Amino acid sequence: METNVALEKALNMLLAYVPKPGTEIVEILKSQNRVLAEDVLADIMVPPFSRSPLDGFAFRSSDSPREKGQKVRLKIVDYLPAGVPATRPVNSGEAVKLMTGAMIPEGADAVVKFEDVVEEDGYVIIDFPVKPETNIVKKGEDFLPGDVIIEKDRVINANAISLLALAGKKKVLVYKIPKVYIICTGSELVDIEQIPGPGKIRNTNLYSIGALVARSGGEPVLGRIVNDDLNLIAQEIKRGLEVADLVLTTGGASVGEYDLIIKALESIGAEILFWKTDFKPGTPVIGAVANGKIVIGLSGNPQAAMTSFELIAYPVIRKLTGRQNIYHARVKAFLDHPFDKTRGQRRFARGYCYLKEGEFRVKILPWLSPGSLKGVLNSNALVEIPKNCPPLKTNDPVNIVLIEGGSLSAFDTPDSGLF
Amino acid sequence: METNVALEKALNMLLAYVPKPGTEIVEILKSQNRVLAEDVLADIMVPPFSRSPLDGFAFRSSDSPREKGQKVRLKIVDYLPAGVPATRPVNSGEAVKLMTGAMIPEGADAVVKFEDVVEEDGYVIIDFPVKPETNIVKKGEDFLPGDVIIEKDRVINANAISLLALAGKKKVLVYKIPKVYIICTGSELVDIEQIPGPGKIRNTNLYSIGALVARSGGEPVLGRIVNDDLNLIAQEIKRGLEVADLVLTTGGASVGEYDLIIKALESIGAEILFWKTDFKPGTPVIGAVANGKIVIGLSGNPQAAMTSFELIAYPVIRKLTGRQNIYHARVKAFLDHPFDKTRGQRRFARGYCYLKEGEFRVKILPWLSPGSLKGVLNSNALVEIPKNCPPLKTNDPVNIVLIEGGSLSAFDTPDSGLF
Repeated sequence: METNVALEKALNMLLAYVPKPGTEIVEILKSQNRVLAEDVLADIMVPPFSRSPLDGFAFRSSDSPREKGQKVRLKIVDYLPAGVPATRPVNSGEAVKLMTGAMIPEGADAVVKFEDVVEEDGYVIIDFPVKPETNIVKKGEDFLPGDVIIEKDRVINANAISLLALAGKKKVLVYKIPKVYIICTGSELVDIEQIPGPGKIRNTNLYSIGALVARSGGEPVLGRIVNDDLNLIAQEIKRGLEVADLVLTTGGASVGEYDLIIKALESIGAEILFWKTDFKPGTPVIGAVANGKIVIGLSGNPQAAMTSFELIAYPVIRKLTGRQNIYHARVKAFLDHPFDKTRGQRRFARGYCYLKEGEFRVKILPWLSPGSLKGVLNSNALVEIPKNCPPLKTNDPVNIVLIEGGSLSAFDTPDSGLF
Repeated sequence: METNVALEKALNMLLAYVPKPGTEIVEILKSQNRVLAEDVLADIMVPPFSRSPLDGFAFRSSDSPREKGQKVRLKIVDYLPAGVPATRPVNSGEAVKLMTGAMIPEGADAVVKFEDVVEEDGYVIIDFPVKPETNIVKKGEDFLPGDVIIEKDRVINANAISLLALAGKKKVLVYKIPKVYIICTGSELVDIEQIPGPGKIRNTNLYSIGALVARSGGEPVLGRIVNDDLNLIAQEIKRGLEVADLVLTTGGASVGEYDLIIKALESIGAEILFWKTDFKPGTPVIGAVANGKIVIGLSGNPQAAMTSFELIAYPVIRKLTGRQNIYHARVKAFLDHPFDKTRGQRRFARGYCYLKEGEFRVKILPWLSPGSLKGVLNSNALVEIPKNCPPLKTNDPVNIVLIEGGSLSAFDTPDSGLF
């Protein structure tokens, strides 16, 4: 077991144990934010026929005048809305009126816009030269049968769903959603619906960590509250390992309580990879592996547990979902105020980040007691304060982790209109 | 009916008709990304009792030495893990050993850390002065009963769920998810699972728009494919108005097909607010109101329909969900290449945006035919090209709309580690 490990090292130790996820078939409209587990190929030509991209007249370009100003009159022999195939070919001296998306009739090799020509007594008058293939979207121009339309391992979004639909897929193979079992330990904990008795507190961790698991792309499986009892904890971890792909515990990981989670893990034959990291808050985090599955022990302090989750558990869950890009977005931001509470230990402070004139700016929120949730509401970033960092001044750049899914729409933007 | 309206004006016309959404009760772990429809108050003091933030000894601060170096010996009379209330008060000359989170026993008003003192033969030796209230998290310090813990109209995220749990709420009042009925018109359309016959194409719009509705926070309700028939379209719009909060149509909105959607809307007594906007692509968009509900007519061209959706329908759906912040995030980005295809009309080109050294950079994707979906896959931004804009050079700043939920994690970040 290593101890006082750096964040990056702790992560690498855990990530090495993440297995390739299993797969399942889902309807494409239920596949958003899932990861594609197959290459999807075109089964037909796209477009399936040569078509007009606009409302106009199709004809033989060889019928068009040699020079601008010369006029030709072509007889309009057919009218084709989209979806209606031509009943006859277009011969020299003829034109077919057609609508956007209509199939180009046989014989025609160019289309002119309604607005560019004159229609008169059943004829269309064209007074400029037209090259072959003008305004024709050619059959198979986008994809040929067998072309890869969308590659395996892509995160599926609306753009991807439009292409899955194009390939005729109503259902698609995706990686399974990892199940994450959450165990909250502590004899002081009561269910949140109870009024806590003397010395007791509500078990908020089950829900905050559950919500974070869901936001990370996992399915939270809520375990029971477990008293500070070695055997009960060991039993509950074993149960988690049976029903889930990852087990998270809260509590029982700090110095005074050291024995509990570590001993419970050892009693079930787990390999302890590390205990304690070198950054705050949430220092006493545990990383372990049992039956090939990862167990992460988080602090019992509500706010510290949430911060350690973002830094340690989030990338592990993202990798379990089959994603390639597993980290929170991280950007440089400029401090809104001086900050002199730098320390001899690396820290991630809760911050509120916003955009101003295209730049990220950040306020460090008042330093929260690790056990308090007050103030956590406005936090959308973790601000890295390096070890032995000198005091920071207003406008100094800092590294920040965007924890709200990197979602800029969660930030205030100073402009209220579109631009 | 207004025509050739600016994007911002079209939006304002529609947004004025968005009603305040209804409410429903959901479990807190199902409430993520929903909008809170009630103020949530503290029902108890938080913390519910004065407690120790660390492992240490609780005692009377008046027993501590006057000066550093002087020693006092206090008899250890009790041991309190978290969750176990004291059985007796602490008198002068006494101390209680306690763990993080334990309740401060009556009489004690300060806590010293294990590491700062010496424990010996059932006594603790303190050799420095300790002020009252040192290391004590006071009862009610975060919230008093009746304090607002989280305000109405907040978007619920994991942070908010931790506070809902703190308030003892397992269920919470949120705004209902708006139902959005999607009608795809066009005699050329076939269901995506079919092999299209001559002149026919797969109806990808139903799924791309459906996916966009879901990503915007709405519930897509899939309508039928409707041929280019006035009565059938009118019937389907009426059905949509009955079952949903918003109706979106695709197709039948461009010049040649003008009559269809507009006439269908007029036939059911709808008020047409505008037809055609002054930007590309998706110019022939229709905004209307019928029975107090909004109908938006989008282009039938797959890519143009998706772009108009982002610009026009997205903010409408966001407002229907009860959100205050309804627009996509918009930032300045620097062009990766020159761009000279500027025009006399305002345009939103598909782009790929990424972060480099904390700055947004953007590539404009090859100009797509509005009917083609090829290349749409890599698009995560819309790049605004203003009307009559001079040719743009590499590194020129442009306004971009971040369409992938503003999610930075959808972008490549050049660094692979955490920082």
